[in-house]
Amino acid sequence: MEPINISDYEILAQTLMEPAAWDFYAGGSDDEVTLRANCTAFERIRLRPRVLVDVNVCDLRTTVLGTPVNMPILVAPTGYHGLAHPEAECATARAAGEVGSLMVASTVSNCSMEEIAAAASGPLWFQLYTYGGYQVSAELVRRAQAAGYRAVVVTVDLPRLGHREKNIRNKFALPPHLQEGNFTANTDLSEKSSLLTWDVLPWLRSITTLPILLKGILTAEDAKLAAEHGVEGIVVSNHGGRQLDTALASIEALPEVIEAVAGRCEVYMDGGIRRGTDVLKALALGAHAVLVGRPILWGLAANGAAGVRHVLEILRDELELAMVLCGRPTIASIDRWLVSLRT
Amino acid sequence: MEPINISDYEILAQTLMEPAAWDFYAGGSDDEVTLRANCTAFERIRLRPRVLVDVNVCDLRTTVLGTPVNMPILVAPTGYHGLAHPEAECATARAAGEVGSLMVASTVSNCSMEEIAAAASGPLWFQLYTYGGYQVSAELVRRAQAAGYRAVVVTVDLPRLGHREKNIRNKFALPPHLQEGNFTANTDLSEKSSLLTWDVLPWLRSITTLPILLKGILTAEDAKLAAEHGVEGIVVSNHGGRQLDTALASIEALPEVIEAVAGRCEVYMDGGIRRGTDVLKALALGAHAVLVGRPILWGLAANGAAGVRHVLEILRDELELAMVLCGRPTIASIDRWLVSLRT
Amino acid sequence: MEPINISDYEILAQTLMEPAAWDFYAGGSDDEVTLRANCTAFERIRLRPRVLVDVNVCDLRTTVLGTPVNMPILVAPTGYHGLAHPEAECATARAAGEVGSLMVASTVSNCSMEEIAAAASGPLWFQLYTYGGYQVSAELVRRAQAAGYRAVVVTVDLPRLGHREKNIRNKFALPPHLQEGNFTANTDLSEKSSLLTWDVLPWLRSITTLPILLKGILTAEDAKLAAEHGVEGIVVSNHGGRQLDTALASIEALPEVIEAVAGRCEVYMDGGIRRGTDVLKALALGAHAVLVGRPILWGLAANGAAGVRHVLEILRDELELAMVLCGRPTIASIDRWLVSLRT
Amino acid sequence: MEPINISDYEILAQTLMEPAAWDFYAGGSDDEVTLRANCTAFERIRLRPRVLVDVNVCDLRTTVLGTPVNMPILVAPTGYHGLAHPEAECATARAAGEVGSLMVASTVSNCSMEEIAAAASGPLWFQLYTYGGYQVSAELVRRAQAAGYRAVVVTVDLPRLGHREKNIRNKFALPPHLQEGNFTANTDLSEKSSLLTWDVLPWLRSITTLPILLKGILTAEDAKLAAEHGVEGIVVSNHGGRQLDTALASIEALPEVIEAVAGRCEVYMDGGIRRGTDVLKALALGAHAVLVGRPILWGLAANGAAGVRHVLEILRDELELAMVLCGRPTIASIDRWLVSLRT
Repeated sequence: MEPINISDYEILAQTLMEPAAWDFYAGGSDDEVTLRANCTAFERIRLRPRVLVDVNVCDLRTTVLGTPVNMPILVAPTGYHGLAHPEAECATARAAGEVGSLMVASTVSNCSMEEIAAAASGPLWFQLYTYGGYQVSAELVRRAQAAGYRAVVVTVDLPRLGHREKNIRNKFALPPHLQEGNFTANTDLSEKSSLLTWDVLPWLRSITTLPILLKGILTAEDAKLAAEHGVEGIVVSNHGGRQLDTALASIEALPEVIEAVAGRCEVYMDGGIRRGTDVLKALALGAHAVLVGRPILWGLAANGAAGVRHVLEILRDELELAMVLCGRPTIASIDRWLVSLRT
Repeated sequence: MEPINISDYEILAQTLMEPAAWDFYAGGSDDEVTLRANCTAFERIRLRPRVLVDVNVCDLRTTVLGTPVNMPILVAPTGYHGLAHPEAECATARAAGEVGSLMVASTVSNCSMEEIAAAASGPLWFQLYTYGGYQVSAELVRRAQAAGYRAVVVTVDLPRLGHREKNIRNKFALPPHLQEGNFTANTDLSEKSSLLTWDVLPWLRSITTLPILLKGILTAEDAKLAAEHGVEGIVVSNHGGRQLDTALASIEALPEVIEAVAGRCEVYMDGGIRRGTDVLKALALGAHAVLVGRPILWGLAANGAAGVRHVLEILRDELELAMVLCGRPTIASIDRWLVSLRT
Repeated sequence: MEPINISDYEILAQTLMEPAAWDFYAGGSDDEVTLRANCTAFERIRLRPRVLVDVNVCDLRTTVLGTPVNMPILVAPTGYHGLAHPEAECATARAAGEVGSLMVASTVSNCSMEEIAAAASGPLWFQLYTYGGYQVSAELVRRAQAAGYRAVVVTVDLPRLGHREKNIRNKFALPPHLQEGNFTANTDLSEKSSLLTWDVLPWLRSITTLPILLKGILTAEDAKLAAEHGVEGIVVSNHGGRQLDTALASIEALPEVIEAVAGRCEVYMDGGIRRGTDVLKALALGAHAVLVGRPILWGLAANGAAGVRHVLEILRDELELAMVLCGRPTIASIDRWLVSLRT
Repeated sequence: MEPINISDYEILAQTLMEPAAWDFYAGGSDDEVTLRANCTAFERIRLRPRVLVDVNVCDLRTTVLGTPVNMPILVAPTGYHGLAHPEAECATARAAGEVGSLMVASTVSNCSMEEIAAAASGPLWFQLYTYGGYQVSAELVRRAQAAGYRAVVVTVDLPRLGHREKNIRNKFALPPHLQEGNFTANTDLSEKSSLLTWDVLPWLRSITTLPILLKGILTAEDAKLAAEHGVEGIVVSNHGGRQLDTALASIEALPEVIEAVAGRCEVYMDGGIRRGTDVLKALALGAHAVLVGRPILWGLAANGAAGVRHVLEILRDELELAMVLCGRPTIASIDRWLVSLRT
């Protein structure tokens, strides 16, 4: 099969991957209600295209925290790319840069953040899990800044690991041929007192000059607090349906976050993006850009860096076509009137 | 099988046609969400029939831009009727006239517009694609006026071709035995700078005296602009779900268009009409008449001109029965109170 | 199988009947959207039971146009009971009376109305189709009054026969061993100018002293007109989904009719009653009593008069239990607060 | 299969139990609409998690009518545990106490209430059916108080037994090897005049000093009356979908009860709890604690007391994780803003 859309890549990847590794990528928590809702919520949103607008030139470029990117589609942090391909995160980083996207590298990667930075051909952000405690976390941030990462994305929705039943039934563990890229066997990772309170922000400011984003916010209340704490960005996310099941779908939570933030910082979202029209709907509802998780892994599993590049190209081309067909030839022209939530 | 409804003709046509040609007719863009929504949206609308009205005489006649027709059911422009039947658009045109309907002939036809006009037994409108550029488009309009077409229906929702995955997978191309009816091998059709801005209207006025309709409007905003630009008509349409996927269903978009136009021009709709009750619902929501696309092709594939005629007769008879059972024996008596959008 | 609910009788009847006769009873018009909606609309209505009410005595008795009945569940007019059982409408009438219900005998029956009246052990109303014209209709009404029928129920939703596709495909006709009970071969029944306008009411008043009900009203507008014309009763009905497809479900239409009538006449409903809780919901929404159609025919097909009796007993017992469990031990205690339309 | 969630226990239990006994536990009344709605209504409620709250310590402890429990998850009264396991209610009581829950023992048990009390390792309430009449009921309450039960939970939604079709078709009766734990062969249990009116409350007060809860309230009206009558608690319940079919789902009824009670007594709920997130939603909508019925029986059937304990541990652990992931580390911190009813 010649893959022509993201769903094709999903099928390809499932065919190629080890079942337990596939389950690790694919699964959500509990009954996977939120996992499914992330996608189906997009289908209920209808587009209201405008016509007779000059769309001969369509420009997808934007900036993310000041960094220019070719499209408002970023690579979400996801764990252990080595399960999909031997080149792991290095392949992903290379592909992301080649199409002018930005990759958010995860704390839990099979390549080290320095290897990823060396392989990367474009800008990088670093996703931080703080469960290692102050010392481990500080070291991660220090290394990220040293390696040229441009922002720290703190995941705030994992004070504990979600209940992912597929992994439990599979007794899933990282296969022996793969290692933790960012930790050595000596790193003390035993789950301990979580750093995840609002105090994490002044502490982070005290150890880094990088801009800080909070990933995993789903409510207006927390979005308001985040803005008041002066974060540079928010990622509306439910961790791909892998943490709290029956949480709001990301796209459902986006509008209240946008309203609460009122422009005080950039708001991103991830969860359920499978089509260019999904990206367009998220932008219309106020997202600055979207992050894509599982589709990247599918591309990686199917064809390494070339697969990742193709997945991003597909989404980019679909977004461009959708913008043209909606009479919104620039990112700036995408407005709230483009979507109808009635249906 | 003796076909007794439109669905029967769909099954017959699928049985008889080449699979790739069938897919070309049947398919929509991307995930075909809008393709399906066009039909299912009708089912959610409930009819509120009135009783004890004198319906001994039921009259379906109306006029469309001043041209009398026997029923408010027109033949929508659809491409390449030669895929369904050797007589192609000439058969369709003959059938449409025989039952007192009107055909909108497409730019992309296997018969030339002059052949269609010669075969036609009733009134014709010409559907214009402007992607050939000014010169090609002007020539098309000039020929249409010369051949007796009574209006130009400009398709405005195709600044680029939609992403029709069935065609991509089939690598669909017009079979060798079929040709473009309106173009020669010398016509320069390479997709170029689109003419599709509001400037297309003054330009069209400058080259033709025919009335102009815009086909592919789905929002109040564009409907208002169209009325202000003085068009004679609007066709509410999402191109049969073949352009922007997850766009509003046509019947969902109709009410806001009707309200925005406020009677300044005639408003038509296409998309999802499979029953006489669907026609009735569209009229109740303000459509002047409806256009029917795929069902015409199914009739043509099943039985040539006779099949097209039968399809139109079925819809006409169903509409008449529905009008009788609703206590609306004339087109003028069909009002907004006939439908309930609650359910 | 020992049938314990209405659904059991449906299965039994389908097993026992000729397929084309089954289809005649079971089918609706067009796509049978309204046929299905009649039932599914009940499931969306939730009951709000009250507790700690004295329900040691539960009384289902009521009166219908002054006639006492043991339960608010009447036998709806349905055609040609001979398709279900050799004793036809005579068996139905006997059963209805035995349980203290009332039967509405149809114009189109296999027994004559006089035979039905002779067999009946309880009160009868006569359902009138006026399509035979003034003379034929007047003769039917005269005979009904002479035979002791207590009211005329004029069906107003059949100015023409609905499009029942199962019958068309089966080329259904009454089998040779069955005859029209109320017409001779000489009766001129060719469909002619319908009498179905509001003028039918003064004409009926001029030929009979019986109370008059209109069956087939689905809107507040017509309910208001009916009340203004002084009818004794209204039956909210869509003819069991056999006339106008995608018309409102009966139970959906009931509230607006009740509000429009404002107590000026009795309002009944039929369509979709399969459980005692359905009866209770209709009463809570304002129905004076309900009429049951197909379930009666299923009982008749399964076991003749005994089957009809059992069907009525099942519904009665289910209604009684539902009233007890809802804390409404009398018909008068059933109020609008019993139902929630939210879900 | 190593069971890891409640659904696993359901499958295990069905595999192990006699079909008719399984049906007795599993079945609801009529079409089981309410049985299903109890569960599906939870899925429509979305959680709105808060982040960056200190959740290092999560405390599930609460009190129920002053009795401390380790979690707001109690054992609902359900009948005849002997169908699941030879140790019957004694095993259930032991397990409930071991995890710091509270068991509501049913009137209809295979162990006597004294045996249960002797086996119990934690607090007990007694569920009272009053259908035996004053004398039998008074004796039950007297024995309960003497045996150390701390409250009487009067079931008010069973003035008559619901129509449970599975039991009827199975002609279900208690197998010969099981007996009524609380009645002797001489107890006169013939269904007689129900005591279920509001007069039951002063009568109960006159014979016991135990706190009284009413179980089976679904409306604001009755909740208000209950509060005015001074009950100590209400259990919002539809008897697990076993009494009035198409009654409101318990979780749907909860908000109006909470509002009507306005804090005058404690409000519990049962019906449809299968996940820790379900418990959390009920608490967010105002429940003081929830009662769990069928899952307890599944654990009992699968593995006796250990199975019951594991079921309660699963729900407790899921609730704890959900509280952590929602930023509500104590019962008191769970508020109405945690849930969204929009979707």
